Amino acid sequence: MEVHTKSVSLSENPYKERARMLISCPDGPGIVAAVSHFLHQHGANIVQSDQYTMDPAGGMFFMRIEFDLVELEQKLPGLEEQFKEVASKFEMNWRIHNVNRKKKMAIFVSKEDHCLVELIWQWQAGDLDGEIAMVVSNHPDMKEYVESFGIPYHIIPVTADTKKEAELRQLEVVGNDIDVIILARYMQIISPTFIQHYRNRIINIHHSFLPAFVGGKPYAQAYQRGVKIIGATAHYVTEELDGGPIIEQDVQRVSHRDDVRELKRIGRTIERVVLARAVKWHIEDRILVHENKTVVFN
Amino acid sequence: MEVHTKSVSLSENPYKERARMLISCPDGPGIVAAVSHFLHQHGANIVQSDQYTMDPAGGMFFMRIEFDLVELEQKLPGLEEQFKEVASKFEMNWRIHNVNRKKKMAIFVSKEDHCLVELIWQWQAGDLDGEIAMVVSNHPDMKEYVESFGIPYHIIPVTADTKKEAELRQLEVVGNDIDVIILARYMQIISPTFIQHYRNRIINIHHSFLPAFVGGKPYAQAYQRGVKIIGATAHYVTEELDGGPIIEQDVQRVSHRDDVRELKRIGRTIERVVLARAVKWHIEDRILVHENKTVVFN
Amino acid sequence: MEVHTKSVSLSENPYKERARMLISCPDGPGIVAAVSHFLHQHGANIVQSDQYTMDPAGGMFFMRIEFDLVELEQKLPGLEEQFKEVASKFEMNWRIHNVNRKKKMAIFVSKEDHCLVELIWQWQAGDLDGEIAMVVSNHPDMKEYVESFGIPYHIIPVTADTKKEAELRQLEVVGNDIDVIILARYMQIISPTFIQHYRNRIINIHHSFLPAFVGGKPYAQAYQRGVKIIGATAHYVTEELDGGPIIEQDVQRVSHRDDVRELKRIGRTIERVVLARAVKWHIEDRILVHENKTVVFN
Amino acid sequence: MEVHTKSVSLSENPYKERARMLISCPDGPGIVAAVSHFLHQHGANIVQSDQYTMDPAGGMFFMRIEFDLVELEQKLPGLEEQFKEVASKFEMNWRIHNVNRKKKMAIFVSKEDHCLVELIWQWQAGDLDGEIAMVVSNHPDMKEYVESFGIPYHIIPVTADTKKEAELRQLEVVGNDIDVIILARYMQIISPTFIQHYRNRIINIHHSFLPAFVGGKPYAQAYQRGVKIIGATAHYVTEELDGGPIIEQDVQRVSHRDDVRELKRIGRTIERVVLARAVKWHIEDRILVHENKTVVFN
Repeated sequence: MEVHTKSVSLSENPYKERARMLISCPDGPGIVAAVSHFLHQHGANIVQSDQYTMDPAGGMFFMRIEFDLVELEQKLPGLEEQFKEVASKFEMNWRIHNVNRKKKMAIFVSKEDHCLVELIWQWQAGDLDGEIAMVVSNHPDMKEYVESFGIPYHIIPVTADTKKEAELRQLEVVGNDIDVIILARYMQIISPTFIQHYRNRIINIHHSFLPAFVGGKPYAQAYQRGVKIIGATAHYVTEELDGGPIIEQDVQRVSHRDDVRELKRIGRTIERVVLARAVKWHIEDRILVHENKTVVFN
Repeated sequence: MEVHTKSVSLSENPYKERARMLISCPDGPGIVAAVSHFLHQHGANIVQSDQYTMDPAGGMFFMRIEFDLVELEQKLPGLEEQFKEVASKFEMNWRIHNVNRKKKMAIFVSKEDHCLVELIWQWQAGDLDGEIAMVVSNHPDMKEYVESFGIPYHIIPVTADTKKEAELRQLEVVGNDIDVIILARYMQIISPTFIQHYRNRIINIHHSFLPAFVGGKPYAQAYQRGVKIIGATAHYVTEELDGGPIIEQDVQRVSHRDDVRELKRIGRTIERVVLARAVKWHIEDRILVHENKTVVFN
Repeated sequence: MEVHTKSVSLSENPYKERARMLISCPDGPGIVAAVSHFLHQHGANIVQSDQYTMDPAGGMFFMRIEFDLVELEQKLPGLEEQFKEVASKFEMNWRIHNVNRKKKMAIFVSKEDHCLVELIWQWQAGDLDGEIAMVVSNHPDMKEYVESFGIPYHIIPVTADTKKEAELRQLEVVGNDIDVIILARYMQIISPTFIQHYRNRIINIHHSFLPAFVGGKPYAQAYQRGVKIIGATAHYVTEELDGGPIIEQDVQRVSHRDDVRELKRIGRTIERVVLARAVKWHIEDRILVHENKTVVFN
Repeated sequence: MEVHTKSVSLSENPYKERARMLISCPDGPGIVAAVSHFLHQHGANIVQSDQYTMDPAGGMFFMRIEFDLVELEQKLPGLEEQFKEVASKFEMNWRIHNVNRKKKMAIFVSKEDHCLVELIWQWQAGDLDGEIAMVVSNHPDMKEYVESFGIPYHIIPVTADTKKEAELRQLEVVGNDIDVIILARYMQIISPTFIQHYRNRIINIHHSFLPAFVGGKPYAQAYQRGVKIIGATAHYVTEELDGGPIIEQDVQRVSHRDDVRELKRIGRTIERVVLARAVKWHIEDRILVHENKTVVFN
């Protein structure tokens, strides 16, 4: 099957000299002037820029810049080297990303396939501008499907006894070259060790309700209280279970006519849409994390 | 000010022979046949009907019927008397409401006025087809505004010491002729005694988040975790705080740009829209309650 | 690939005695009583029912009933035969559908694949409770993909010269056993002859804007006027181009940041969601058509 | 009635040194650097900034900056004078607005009051950070209501014969000190002369449908085709009727159960919400107009 060629065969690339810069630092006067002056001096043309200051007095400053630079590939290392002086002055967290270097995704999945299928679909339609480098699963179910797209599929079973070894194997398989790990309904707890390796680079999706229902079987509880809206939340994974910085949320209306099975079906549809949006924004460097919160420039 | 005349001056009333019937009972064969046969026999013409069966096997049956009946006013008492036989056979909870008898609302409010103002606005625009019989408040703030619409305003202060007396006074003021009590941001706990008097007739509104935030200052917590959606829930009041059957919910998107103050502003807008919808549905006899859940035929 | 087994292997079928009845007729007294009495007499148990009367005085009456009947398969022909007397008395358009007889879909597609892929995805996830009997296309592009699911793929090229022959070939291939034809971005005009064969059984999807843009390149026009919302409309195909009864619509917010390419991408996402919902409702017998309007009981 | 005091009595004003700068100019290198360098030099601290480049190659550049400047009131004239050099170099359209100088609104209204009431409500709740300087109407209906808030109400009747004189009177009444004219369901055509006086400062609201319905009685047409979504569009008024740059749009779901009267009621609710948002963004200097399109930094 050759359906995924669209994502790699753009014959004319309007973004071949495009880079993205992300900055967060303590707020103070002169940051924008310094950065834009620096880029201008080095021949870069800013084509898009967003800034946000959280709490004007003594707060944090966030910035995302897209710029074009002739001969980007060659000049980027030098630019980064010279930017260190500016960055140091303002105590910046920063990175510059060459848009033409496709981001690498690793998708973790268990048995439920809806989120995985949506990501593959959006990727092969050219809507997710990255590379699905691998799928990792504790089950063999999706092997044939995933491999039909030419994507490697790693089966790493996880049991109570083998949890530690399984995680070592996962670290080995994922390696250090992956930009984002997507938990596409991966039903295993991720250990703090694993999270530290990929801080702010692991995206999880889970269902959400207004209000939240504590305890098991949330869909059954939601049905019993007759909720009128169900939703999903995509967030970065932190040590606090389902408590990390929220990237995106969305909801859909339901009614008393929707039984538990239908609520779950609708929930799946929201989950795949919300997760795909969060992944797209991560890949396009639209998300900055500060403490337990995201700034999303979309 | 005479701006509220629209709600009473419909020169031609297309609904002057219209009634609504609400039924809930254990499911079983022949209910619809029995009810529709009864109405047909008595000359009523069914113009709208909704049914819903919760859990086919041994579940509950819910029905809402709108019908027209010539000389409704005179015939209704007889119709109700004769329906008792049908109702008894199927163990029905039921009621019939003459659409021309306007429902009476009592609105409880503290200091925040947004929900009260929305209800009065929708009422004077003719969109809430009932009568605002009174406003009850523990504060005098909205007195002049409310009375300018010709609505009685009862100030009943509540303190820790006078809680009991205040409630007795409320029961006295509200009386037994009120169809629905609306807690339009009324910031006092309602006692079980009061709730029992008006079972499934007290509607409350509160903000809602995905996920819920436990503890104080929920808007501050929501801001700190960077929620992307905030919402509101309207529900019937039960003995469990904010745990009663949900009538309606809605949400709005927010972003990192919205500070706590802006989140609260958006929250107020959703609250007034959601509460007004819930009240409209209650007044139009669109809501049936079963256990901790509503069936809303809208 | 065996991913689509979920839709056929429900080991326990809770709906094995379930049927759906759709009725539309001139409004008048006694219809509900007659129908529910008839079903009760014949041992059917009504589990869900919706009615709607369009314009009370001299209007149209619409009804959808789900009922369970022991030994449905054997008894249905007799039931239908005997219902004719009731139907005739009230001049009904009616049909009864055995839920266990899966509806047959034929999907027409050209080169754009997003709607086709969504339908196949929802079908193999068990969310579209029918059978994709065939895909018909004027292009070979999706052949391998479609056939990998075991679905027949018919290539029928269409040119200005061969339009007539192509249509005859289509009529032959589709035949009389298909319940619904889905134009999943099929970019050829359907002739009145073809439409008459499948009256109210051809569903089309197209993008929609507020306001509409007359003339070519609607996305470019929408971009130039800075629309903030784009949408999609699913409708039954009639002789008036894109003018048939609307089944479902939905929208998504966009901003000035979305260029024409991104608007198109978002448009595709809405199209596939809206089309899939319309097909689901058609398959579940939730849609009644009257003149140029649908009544959707969902 | 003194209910509108909230908007003027903020005891502590966190924005007392805040200004907003709006720039649009042909895109080119160095703009951001030049502007941010200029502001930094003059002691201003940028607290929020948005940029957008429409079509990278030879396109337009748009920028909105919020900055704080000690002793803003005194320093602003000098700052503006000195900025002219920067502005001239890049051929900028620009303006700087002192946040503490409340924007002045003139609201035009005919007989339908829902948009007017919403604007007054949001204003008195402190959500519209401007001043309602006057209401102008061709009817006396809302006089008492408007004046109860201390707002001047000018009745200027318009007939076919007096159209010209009426407009001269309007120009006189509105004058040159008004920042935005809001057509809150003002049912008279505005002449090109009037539009030229207040280019990109007249906001209109009208209902919108997917698809649009040409000819009279759009709600009746929408009902007859069974639309599932209705909406509203707020736009700047240009010489092309209802064809000016779109500021904001929103929609709500409807169903076959909603008759023409109910569709209109829902339409009114969307209109008032959408108009209020557009006015809020105009007042907060969030809108830049280019050709027939808006860039909204919200």
